[in-house]
Amino acid sequence: MTKLFVLGTGPGDLDLLSPMAATAIEASTDLVAYGLYLDLLGELCDGKTRHDRPLGEEIERARLALDLAASGKSTALISSGDIGIFAMATLVFELLDRQLQGLEERPQWLDVDIQVIPGISAMQAAAARIGATLGHDFCAISLSDLLTPWEVIERRVEAAALGDFVVSFYNPVSMKRRWQLEKARDILLLHRSADTPVVLGRNLTREGEQVEIIRLGDLTADQVDMLTLVQVGSSNTRHIDTGKRSWLYTPRGYQKKMESAQ
Amino acid sequence: MTKLFVLGTGPGDLDLLSPMAATAIEASTDLVAYGLYLDLLGELCDGKTRHDRPLGEEIERARLALDLAASGKSTALISSGDIGIFAMATLVFELLDRQLQGLEERPQWLDVDIQVIPGISAMQAAAARIGATLGHDFCAISLSDLLTPWEVIERRVEAAALGDFVVSFYNPVSMKRRWQLEKARDILLLHRSADTPVVLGRNLTREGEQVEIIRLGDLTADQVDMLTLVQVGSSNTRHIDTGKRSWLYTPRGYQKKMESAQ
Repeated sequence: MTKLFVLGTGPGDLDLLSPMAATAIEASTDLVAYGLYLDLLGELCDGKTRHDRPLGEEIERARLALDLAASGKSTALISSGDIGIFAMATLVFELLDRQLQGLEERPQWLDVDIQVIPGISAMQAAAARIGATLGHDFCAISLSDLLTPWEVIERRVEAAALGDFVVSFYNPVSMKRRWQLEKARDILLLHRSADTPVVLGRNLTREGEQVEIIRLGDLTADQVDMLTLVQVGSSNTRHIDTGKRSWLYTPRGYQKKMESAQ
Repeated sequence: MTKLFVLGTGPGDLDLLSPMAATAIEASTDLVAYGLYLDLLGELCDGKTRHDRPLGEEIERARLALDLAASGKSTALISSGDIGIFAMATLVFELLDRQLQGLEERPQWLDVDIQVIPGISAMQAAAARIGATLGHDFCAISLSDLLTPWEVIERRVEAAALGDFVVSFYNPVSMKRRWQLEKARDILLLHRSADTPVVLGRNLTREGEQVEIIRLGDLTADQVDMLTLVQVGSSNTRHIDTGKRSWLYTPRGYQKKMESAQ
């Protein structure tokens, strides 16, 4: 039974790539990924057969990875971040599901030994870089309406606002998709202050890293691109400045305990 | 300026500990953590001064770590999982905030060079182990009402239900806290089917790992302990069985695209 590793490489810095993921890449003869992710891996890819596929060809990549593994090649399907979070892992299982439903003609896929290996997601890299924004309840929402109706996304943003969650927006904009982020901002502004801090993180842990704290009221699509992680604080998220550095954190509510302990 | 590393070691398996976290531990002379987490690190702790503190003494641990670093010792404050997610990182910044407000007498804390290093959180380990449950929008909620009023938690669970998020419950129960999980289940059951799949993950990636898929309608506090991660699927999460193994995944909505491509 051949192995298909489905793995995330983290935000970019190879020091955040887990040894488990590195070992899986080493054990593979064939790597399937968007080319940029393979470039970031550097020497780890030496001597492997690379199957680069452009963005947008996600289904083809998942299919190819299953086909390669089913043909007897130890294969790694790779994405940056956590491949389980808004990424390729779910497509592999969707294809297995289609085979089980008789919609594909690949019974050999069901014999592949699949191992999913998690990675550090962008929301975690952003939180760590800026302090501890995910210290209390949070949610993650993709703003891409290519595959999900906007009404569903809008309902989720409203729910996030009602629940006062810290919100990480994945896929906030694309070249063609510009208005969704500002619509989401407007929904959140009905429930939280315009002063709510927002983290914009770009190229996190990579060369050219940019991290900025802005006000929710000042968030526009122009400040953001496809690779930006947008993280909006809850009503409880605090912004402090030590004189040397600015930090954001979302308290767990220990303040009261500390007061009463004095 | 001495360094305080604030780092997460991942779910347990050292193969999921990032090289960045391992290097930070190596660079530290003093380690502050709940003893069990240090035990899991094995040889990495050799030759270091260990400052074990029992569960419940979180504030004391954060304080001690800042004091040690301010005194010139390179220090690592350590938790399992991601220290930024429902863990110690936020307490460090809360203490800095108190100092800035004049509620502490530790100006030297403000000179400490803090670096937060993220780790793989339990919800990610559970998702990877069972398939791809976090493939689409999700949230994480702590059910501990020791520090957060139950009304706030209940509002968040309601919001999660309304938004049809995949929900990971952290701190689902404790020895004294039993009813909250079942109350949360009942709120979710108002909005999703009793057949909604739930993952119970215990000792993820560690010796004695237990992973189980049950129905939301069958979830009781008796099946869960402090160390269990409870992850409830959205209305869209699917359970498949290949004959060899059961998987759960939450599709991103590609199904439609695949159909139309045929």
